[in-house]
This record gives sequence, C-alpha cells and structure tokens, in this order.
Amino acid sequence: MPQFAPLQNDTFLRALLRQPTEYTPVWLMRQAGRYLPEYRATRARAGSFLGLAKNPDYATEVTLQPIDRYPLDASILFSDILTVPDAMGLGLYFADGEGPKFERPLRTEADVKALQVPDMASLDYVFKAVTSIRTALNGRVPLIGFSGSPWTLACYMVEGGGSREFHTVKKMLYARPDLMHRILDINAQAVIQYLNAQIDAGAQAVMIFDSWGGALADGAYQEFSLKYMRQIVAGLKRTVGNKPDGERIPAIVFTKGGGIWLDEMADIGADALGLDWTMNLGRARALVGDRVALQGNLDPAILFAEPEQIRAEVERSLSAYGTPGNGHGHVFNLGHGISQFTPPESVSAMVEAVHSFSRKQRADGGAA
Amino acid sequence: MPQFAPLQNDTFLRALLRQPTEYTPVWLMRQAGRYLPEYRATRARAGSFLGLAKNPDYATEVTLQPIDRYPLDASILFSDILTVPDAMGLGLYFADGEGPKFERPLRTEADVKALQVPDMASLDYVFKAVTSIRTALNGRVPLIGFSGSPWTLACYMVEGGGSREFHTVKKMLYARPDLMHRILDINAQAVIQYLNAQIDAGAQAVMIFDSWGGALADGAYQEFSLKYMRQIVAGLKRTVGNKPDGERIPAIVFTKGGGIWLDEMADIGADALGLDWTMNLGRARALVGDRVALQGNLDPAILFAEPEQIRAEVERSLSAYGTPGNGHGHVFNLGHGISQFTPPESVSAMVEAVHSFSRKQRADGGAA
Repeated sequence: MPQFAPLQNDTFLRALLRQPTEYTPVWLMRQAGRYLPEYRATRARAGSFLGLAKNPDYATEVTLQPIDRYPLDASILFSDILTVPDAMGLGLYFADGEGPKFERPLRTEADVKALQVPDMASLDYVFKAVTSIRTALNGRVPLIGFSGSPWTLACYMVEGGGSREFHTVKKMLYARPDLMHRILDINAQAVIQYLNAQIDAGAQAVMIFDSWGGALADGAYQEFSLKYMRQIVAGLKRTVGNKPDGERIPAIVFTKGGGIWLDEMADIGADALGLDWTMNLGRARALVGDRVALQGNLDPAILFAEPEQIRAEVERSLSAYGTPGNGHGHVFNLGHGISQFTPPESVSAMVEAVHSFSRKQRADGGAA
Repeated sequence: MPQFAPLQNDTFLRALLRQPTEYTPVWLMRQAGRYLPEYRATRARAGSFLGLAKNPDYATEVTLQPIDRYPLDASILFSDILTVPDAMGLGLYFADGEGPKFERPLRTEADVKALQVPDMASLDYVFKAVTSIRTALNGRVPLIGFSGSPWTLACYMVEGGGSREFHTVKKMLYARPDLMHRILDINAQAVIQYLNAQIDAGAQAVMIFDSWGGALADGAYQEFSLKYMRQIVAGLKRTVGNKPDGERIPAIVFTKGGGIWLDEMADIGADALGLDWTMNLGRARALVGDRVALQGNLDPAILFAEPEQIRAEVERSLSAYGTPGNGHGHVFNLGHGISQFTPPESVSAMVEAVHSFSRKQRADGGAA
C-alpha cells in the first residue's frame, strides 16, 4: 500500500457519507477535458486520446489541470470507460472524429463463450495512474476511481461502438438472455477486481457510470443493469490500510436517465446516487430519505449562459435540495459530462456560486 | 363538415375515454413506415419523403397499408412532424441519409421577432389528407391527427435539425428565455389551429408528440414544454358535428422520457398520456389514478426477438397494467416509433398477443 499525504479537504467524502459539511462540495463529470485549453495542449503532445489515457504521466497532468484552475472538492482519475473490455481483447480504437469502437465486438455465441475476466496486470497503467495522481494531489482533494457499469460496457462490447437505439445489444438481451447474463456476469467480476485495484492504488471513492442504463425498459433495467451494480457494490473493499478504521470508501452509482428507478437504486448498497437534470433534487431527497447521498444535477447546457443565469440556476438547484443535515448529503455536479464547447469561465461562476450559496443556506437554514 | 361512414371499431376511442372495452386496443407509433415493403414501394414511386408526405393520395395509401396488413385498432395520419415550421417559412428539407433540416433556422433576435403563426391555407395538403384517409378508412378504425409539441418544434427550428445535446436551443432557453417563450407561444397558437383544422377535416383523436421534452431539466420542462401543451389541450375543439353530443375528441400527450413528470402531466387536461418503456405500467396507473388513460409502452427493440419472446413481453406489459376498469383505460403501443429494421411478422405476433391476452385477462380478472 503506497503512503500518501494527509487529506486537507474531505468535504466531498463527508457529504457522500451523509456527515455534516460547511458547504456543498462540487466537482464536474469530465472536468479534465477538451473545454480546457491546457488539456488540449497535453492531448496534442500525447498524439492521441489513447496515448493520453494509457500514459500515467499524461493522465496525472490532465487530472490535476481542473484542480489547479478551480477550487473543486474532488478529482477523478483520467481514463477511458472502455479500458476493461480493451483488456479483454476486444481491440479498442478511436476512428477520426468518432467515438470509441471495438475491432472485435461480441456478436456470436462463440464470441461470448470465449470472453474471460482479464488479468488485472494488463490494466496496470490505470493503477499506476491512480497512484501517480494521488501522489501529485498531495492531499489537496480526494481522488475518485471509476468504471463503466456491466451493462454500459456490454452495450459497447456488443454494438462495437456507441449507438442511438441499441438494437444489436437489445436484440441479444431479449432473444438470448443467457448470453447477455454471461457477458454481464464476467463484466461484473472484472469491474469488482478493477475498482478494488484502484482502491488499493489510492482511490478514495469510486463511481460506477451506467451511462446507458436509461435505454433499458422497466424490468430489463432491474435484471440486466441494477442487479450487477448491486453485485459490484457488495464486492468492493470498503476500508483500506490508509483509511482510519471503519471509515468507508464511498461508492457512487449513476444511471443516466435512471431517476424513474431511484427508489430501487437507493437499496443496492451504494453510498450515493448520481442524478441527471430531469430529476428534481427535493423530490429525489424525499424519495431516498437517509438511505443514500445524492450527486448532481445541473444541466450542462446551463454553462452556455451568462454567469448571472448560471448563478440563478445553481441557487435554484441548491434550494430544491434544501439544507443538508439529519443524515442527508449532497455533492453538487452536472447531470452529465461537461461539454467540450463550455467556456471555462462558466465553470468558475458555477463553482463559486455553489460554495457561496451553500454556505449562506447553512447560515440561514440552521443545522448543517 | 364532410360526412363519413359510421365507425365500426371504437375500442381505441373508448379506452382513451376510460370506458370499458372487450380487449386492449393497439396501434404502433410510425406504423406506416419503412419496415413495410409496401411502404417502401410507394415511397419509391413518390420519389422523396416530402413528395410522399405532401401528396394526399400517397399519404392515404401509406396510412392504410398497416391497417390492411394487421388488425390494428387505430390509424394515424401519415405526415411529417415539421409541417408547421415549414409553413412558417423555415424551409424544410431532407439531406440524403440524414434527418430533417431547416434552411433558415431561428438564430437571431430578428429571426424570432419575424416569426408568425402561419396561414393554415398553406397546410391545406395536410387537411386534405385527413379527409381523404378518413374517407378511405370507411369507418374501419378511428383516425388520429397529430402535431409536434411547441418545445419539440422549437428544438428543430432553433437547432436547424436533429440534435443529441440540444446546445443551441438550450442556450437560447437559458440566456434569452424571452425569445424562447415568444417562439413557444407562436408555436402553441399554430398547433391549436393546426389540430383543430385536422379535427374539422375528420380526425377522431389527436396526439401531441413531445419527442424532446425529456431533454429538458426539471423546472425547464414544466415552464417551456408542459405549460404550452396545457394551452393546446385547452384550445382544442373537443366536440364536432359528426360526433354525438357530448362525446369528446380525445387528446393524447406523449413526452418521450417524461415518466418522471407523469403526475404533473396527468393534470393538464389530456385524456391520455403516452409512456416510453422506462416506466412501469402498473406504477404509472397507480400514479395517475382515474385522471387519464395510458398509452404504451413496449420497447421497440423487443420486436427484434422471436414471436415467443414478443408474446412473453406483451403479457408482462399487460399484466403490469392489470385489468382495465373503474375509470382506467389502456391503449397498447410501443414506447417509441417502430424501427425501420423490424421484421413485419413481429408486428403480427405483437398485435395478436395484445388482443388474445387482454381478452383472457378480462375473462379471468372480472369486470372490464
């Protein structure tokens, strides 16, 4: 177990564990990304996205860029969501101007039968990046590790890339549920090992991105996505040597478009649930009670407006949640990854508004 | 008012009005479409999609094709969702292999200020198609008229075409809500006139497609989409000369991805709400009570499976809803338009399963 500097700002971790905080902590999904000129400069030096993501030095550099620029309360490992299927031998690549693709998608029964949990040694570049980032952070803010959910990984693995309608993977789900469950079971085992190795390498919280869970029908979501995320959460190392006894490594689960299933999601053992912008935060808080903390959920499109309008929307969102306390917790975030076209100064306005208004709420509203 | 043959199958209308039916009526969104070889043949003769949609004879021909092939309980006007903005002068066109686009999208304040409710005479080809279809149906099943919602039309009008993230239209919404409300107000006035003219021409029910309402944030949905659909429903002619006194022209409102707001949607005056496949039908029924009927909600991807699996999913969906009665009503449908890649025989299996299982439910379950 590597030794790291003591954590100076644990506001994010306390909010996830539904403990009192002085203000609402904030970070942004995809905060190390193309909207930052310094990111684009590093990306140009690396030559390609995968050249960036697979090099621990570059990954460390870009992970820290938003932390240097903004007073954010958490950092997140810079990596690709598809590292695990890549390690399974599917051949990840990025075609020019397109999203990720696999050279060898899973299409036949033989493809699925041949699938195996990959040797974690082949993902060592990710764990090296975690340790390198945690060291470079030097205790400023916590580091979040992450993985795609079994279902979201399966979407890419079967479709061979992104999709609008998910016909290929859904056809397998309905026509051959046995094959789909085999893929998901292997993915879940792999993700447990993958996240635990990130925790061992220094991750202080983990997040499961179920980006495509919201494409599933009611019933299918519970059987083909939620069930496997529950397995993963149950399989995580929740305490590690570098944490005080009994303090948990919090786990966040985010199904984009999953607000409709929030009540069921609150019972899978996660510490916090991510929300997209379609869900009212006050309603969500009432629904989950003190079972989980919530993370979200500003529409990233709001960051295209002027600072005055951004502040107004941040305040509306924080007011909808209300003052945390009594076993509730809220981490401010967007409801989806930040757009590459976002003006960087919009993020300054958002972060400043979250910190100042949430302090004011606690001062006005009583117990934090 | 044209005179038409008496209606022989009013099961669909009775279900929408929450009256007892002998079985659950069924139709499919986009049922006249590219998955049917006979549609592709007519489309080839017409030369282009707009050549098809703007010609009442072709529109009649393709509207009746699924009615001739399957024992469906309703037909729906074949038309494009963007006829109204086209009539406003925005210049609708279809680029090869792409979705609809506008030559002159609304981008500046001057563009928005110049926007006006179009003369309904310029949409006469739609109303002629309605009368022609109703005549050709000869009373077999009811004819549904439709329009896009003000917000969904605005998405296309401002973006200039389809979009994944809706950055341009959302930027206007947050940065210049005054301009967005002006567009939506004009769209709502136009849609009221448009749907009322369809009713005058022979439409026996109307449906508002809010295809992109689910892209909005909570709060924004209520202010920029739901509010205008409420205005439209209030402005509709609900009785016409060819209907018995007091019998309503039912109005269906469908926000894709709107399950999360179902409780609020149930209060806007619509007779029925469409649901996509993410919402459990039993939960939805409990939520809306006897305020509205429900329409939906099979995942169109299920139609890629074998007949046996299609039947199982239909039965699961009908069982989730339960036996109608006591002021509840259910119209079976997909949760989204049918895919062009659907095998036509899958639709036979689905329709047969809906009719036979729902009759069995009523026989087993008591009062219909």
